[in-house]
Amino acid sequence: MKVRIFWVGKTKERYLNEGINRYLDLLGHMANVSINEIKEEKGRMKEKALFIEGERILRQTDSYFLLDERGKEFNSLEFAEFIKEKGNIDFVIGGPYGVSEDVRKNALSSIAMSRMTFNHEIVRLIFLEQLYRALTIIKGREYHH
Amino acid sequence: MKVRIFWVGKTKERYLNEGINRYLDLLGHMANVSINEIKEEKGRMKEKALFIEGERILRQTDSYFLLDERGKEFNSLEFAEFIKEKGNIDFVIGGPYGVSEDVRKNALSSIAMSRMTFNHEIVRLIFLEQLYRALTIIKGREYHH
Repeated sequence: MKVRIFWVGKTKERYLNEGINRYLDLLGHMANVSINEIKEEKGRMKEKALFIEGERILRQTDSYFLLDERGKEFNSLEFAEFIKEKGNIDFVIGGPYGVSEDVRKNALSSIAMSRMTFNHEIVRLIFLEQLYRALTIIKGREYHH
Repeated sequence: MKVRIFWVGKTKERYLNEGINRYLDLLGHMANVSINEIKEEKGRMKEKALFIEGERILRQTDSYFLLDERGKEFNSLEFAEFIKEKGNIDFVIGGPYGVSEDVRKNALSSIAMSRMTFNHEIVRLIFLEQLYRALTIIKGREYHH
């Protein structure tokens, strides 16, 4: 199983980087999971920056699910089923201003981790934790708290 | 506004402790927010431990909302409205095995951060981030990413 995750820009909070790396280590034993950091576009108006970042995303994936609080909600078991069905899968996680209209329109569908708006760096951690939880469910392994 | 949060046991992950303290610092400028750590009951069967921990919680609060993925969902704006209406408020966050039946039954109601099951330490961070987001919305302040 190959999971590619695309997000824009570095994770600036040190503590989140630590948590993200912790889950990437755990995930590394269970699947081929890669973080594909898209270069952040700085010093431009929001719409223009989103557009340019969007082009960068779409150059790397044309078949992906978008994380969006307006998307479909799953519980953790349903999310595990979803992952299991797909096999290889790409996910795009928006930045502080979300993603461009193009990236939104081209998504296979949108998935919500919650109805709440989470900080865009925290959502990276939450997503990896859910992915790890999903893989432990699929593989019948123990979840390491 | 006084917000008391009850959870069982220490936060063992260092990176989460760092994130939790970061949000507690931010929250400290906006409201009277306290973490009330309930002593974890070790070396007993799960049900018995939950019962004892539940007694400890109920000795400290008799009017609280429980965080539970089966509870009512809010988006961040609705959650801010909810907090604003209440003024002083207590929240209980369960441990790795949740809470006792008594703690569940005595809750004013249950609130879900998500339909997904999050790691019980990560949910502490997420909750504080949402509380901070809610207070920035209520007070019309800028959210510091």
